[in-house]
Amino acid sequence: MPFDHLPPLLRTSSSKIVLLVLDGLGGLPIEAGGPTELEAAKTPNMDRLASEGALGQATPIRPGITPGSGPAHLALFGYDPLEYEIGRGVLESVGVGLQVKAGDVAARGNFCTLNEQGNITDRRAGRIPTAEAIPVVEQLKSISLSGVTTEVRHVKEYRFAIVMRGEGLNPEIDDTDPQRTGVPPLSAIPRSPAADHTADLFNQWIAKARQALADNQKANGLTLRGFATDPNLPTFQDSYGLNAAAISVYPMYKGVANLVGMEVIDFKGETPEDEFNALADVWQEHDFFFIHIKKTDSKGEDGDFAGKAQIIESVDRALPALLNLNPEVLIITGDHSTPAKMRTHSWHPVPFLLWAPATVRSDVQSSFGESACARGGLGNISSMDTLPLALAHAGRLEKFGA
Amino acid sequence: MPFDHLPPLLRTSSSKIVLLVLDGLGGLPIEAGGPTELEAAKTPNMDRLASEGALGQATPIRPGITPGSGPAHLALFGYDPLEYEIGRGVLESVGVGLQVKAGDVAARGNFCTLNEQGNITDRRAGRIPTAEAIPVVEQLKSISLSGVTTEVRHVKEYRFAIVMRGEGLNPEIDDTDPQRTGVPPLSAIPRSPAADHTADLFNQWIAKARQALADNQKANGLTLRGFATDPNLPTFQDSYGLNAAAISVYPMYKGVANLVGMEVIDFKGETPEDEFNALADVWQEHDFFFIHIKKTDSKGEDGDFAGKAQIIESVDRALPALLNLNPEVLIITGDHSTPAKMRTHSWHPVPFLLWAPATVRSDVQSSFGESACARGGLGNISSMDTLPLALAHAGRLEKFGA
Repeated sequence: MPFDHLPPLLRTSSSKIVLLVLDGLGGLPIEAGGPTELEAAKTPNMDRLASEGALGQATPIRPGITPGSGPAHLALFGYDPLEYEIGRGVLESVGVGLQVKAGDVAARGNFCTLNEQGNITDRRAGRIPTAEAIPVVEQLKSISLSGVTTEVRHVKEYRFAIVMRGEGLNPEIDDTDPQRTGVPPLSAIPRSPAADHTADLFNQWIAKARQALADNQKANGLTLRGFATDPNLPTFQDSYGLNAAAISVYPMYKGVANLVGMEVIDFKGETPEDEFNALADVWQEHDFFFIHIKKTDSKGEDGDFAGKAQIIESVDRALPALLNLNPEVLIITGDHSTPAKMRTHSWHPVPFLLWAPATVRSDVQSSFGESACARGGLGNISSMDTLPLALAHAGRLEKFGA
Repeated sequence: MPFDHLPPLLRTSSSKIVLLVLDGLGGLPIEAGGPTELEAAKTPNMDRLASEGALGQATPIRPGITPGSGPAHLALFGYDPLEYEIGRGVLESVGVGLQVKAGDVAARGNFCTLNEQGNITDRRAGRIPTAEAIPVVEQLKSISLSGVTTEVRHVKEYRFAIVMRGEGLNPEIDDTDPQRTGVPPLSAIPRSPAADHTADLFNQWIAKARQALADNQKANGLTLRGFATDPNLPTFQDSYGLNAAAISVYPMYKGVANLVGMEVIDFKGETPEDEFNALADVWQEHDFFFIHIKKTDSKGEDGDFAGKAQIIESVDRALPALLNLNPEVLIITGDHSTPAKMRTHSWHPVPFLLWAPATVRSDVQSSFGESACARGGLGNISSMDTLPLALAHAGRLEKFGA
């Protein structure tokens, strides 16, 4: 349970909570003294919510720590990433839409180049481009093993994910990547006897994959790493008494939401309007809604300051459709910062807006941006405070003690 | 390890970090509404750094806790003083420049006055002044024991420190101070059989000391307390991957720096200029520099508001020599507050300035002072966040998770 003190306090309520996550929302000015991406964006709706609500800045994991997407979302959902770990194989698999259930074993795969002696000459198969790698992954999909099924999916460039399903599987297996060239890939070696059978199955799969790939120029070998199974995270229902829905365009975030027991909503389209329409469609069936906007992060990673600001503006324009649903609590924040100036995730705290007309203690800030958030009424918080604050403002928590 | 999650994230870098500590920097206005010492001081250089960087206020240990110098520095270095403890004997010894290595046993000593029956009449030997105590300490230096060596050094007034070195020593020994007058000092009593031999050696030493001091009027007896050995703190190298140097005029701070594995730099002089010149001399050999300015605290303890402000101004005037070295990260803060108005350490949070031109999220503050820091972009932080923030802004941390 992320917060052991919460479940005894949970109160039934018909209130609705929306957590709107603009991935990589936090930014930096391009030039000293200038605005950040969020400050440069024209966001009249968010500014009104900022006036009516309270602002703060959220630290995703710990001060100074730059989070990956998996840990950053775990933190937003209230699960301390230093305590709850999602194995690499699982993260990569759910990231491309593969389900990983209890008992399944997932791994991340890298294509590599082998010479005639079977030694690795390039650990990333010359970083073959995605277009070239997709047909190679197709060659792996036809491999069959006795007693288990495998699902393989391309990730990006030389990377793919594999999930094995069957009875008695165990993920305690070492990586097969020797971490250097001039030697052959390692076998899948079990770390405990309980994983002997699983390692044997992966070695059979690897042997068949080697045959299937033999004629390729670059991707004629592979390594596997990060063997892991469903981390068995406590669910949103058990942790917070919430029947949660996830609305996301990208598989990775659907996957993490699924791991904490959210229902992942299928919908058409990929714009903020499309996502808010999907929200309206399932509004009656759930009481918590995680909505994920990806492109703020993508533009940040591209170093596209103006593009990131435009994505924020497009979310702002679409907001009335969300507000028309009259949620009791709306939180707008990011999972981490991705300043366009840095072209990568960063450790800087994330702007945090809490709007809850009936219960929020409003502050004096009247626009949504990093500077206003740094002086906001919520002060410095941890991203892990998000759910407890949401539950409280939604009237979903009883008093602790007499 | 102060932060177990940091070592796996450490990244090699040529970036340089400077932690400039003005001891007891935090202050209070003499009259309500007036400036603090830092606010009264003219600090054009620090104000410029404040404009370009971000401010916050740091709590050394926990809210409301007034730290001693040892715990305050441990916190700044990232070691939670509630978890990592340096024994009094060690702190007092390193404070006067005695080295305490693994296996040594250090203790703090108090001179006391004994009557003819050997009972204590004054537990602090009439608080004999330093000038009077120094020759008394000299009398103790000639004591020799079989199989071990001892080093004794005067601390202040009636206080001294002793370090015993040899094979098989163990610090689990109770204080010999009975905490009242009218009774004799206690013997050194071992708390476990492993310390029998060590207690026996200290009792031999005490007996010889009594003989040596017998003719003194006031300081004719002594008590020992705080028996302790090297706390074996994780090093800066292991915790942060930093090759750290310490530049300090006072032995106490050199000692604490030494305990966390910093190289203590020898240099001539005692002004801020002298310290910054020493910094320049070793700039190429290290990547982290702890610079300690003592006199802000001394003036605070003297109740000398103007004197403390002048010391701050003298540091500000010398700053260009430091800035010319182009550190990637410069943090200016204190270990704790020492308001001249209170003439003692206090629990008030400490002004904190983070300057890192390439990576800092600047705030709107433009001067370095308590009020500006209370509204700074870093918000309220823990002094223990100093190193993680420094590492992040210096580009020395990889992303956590995928």
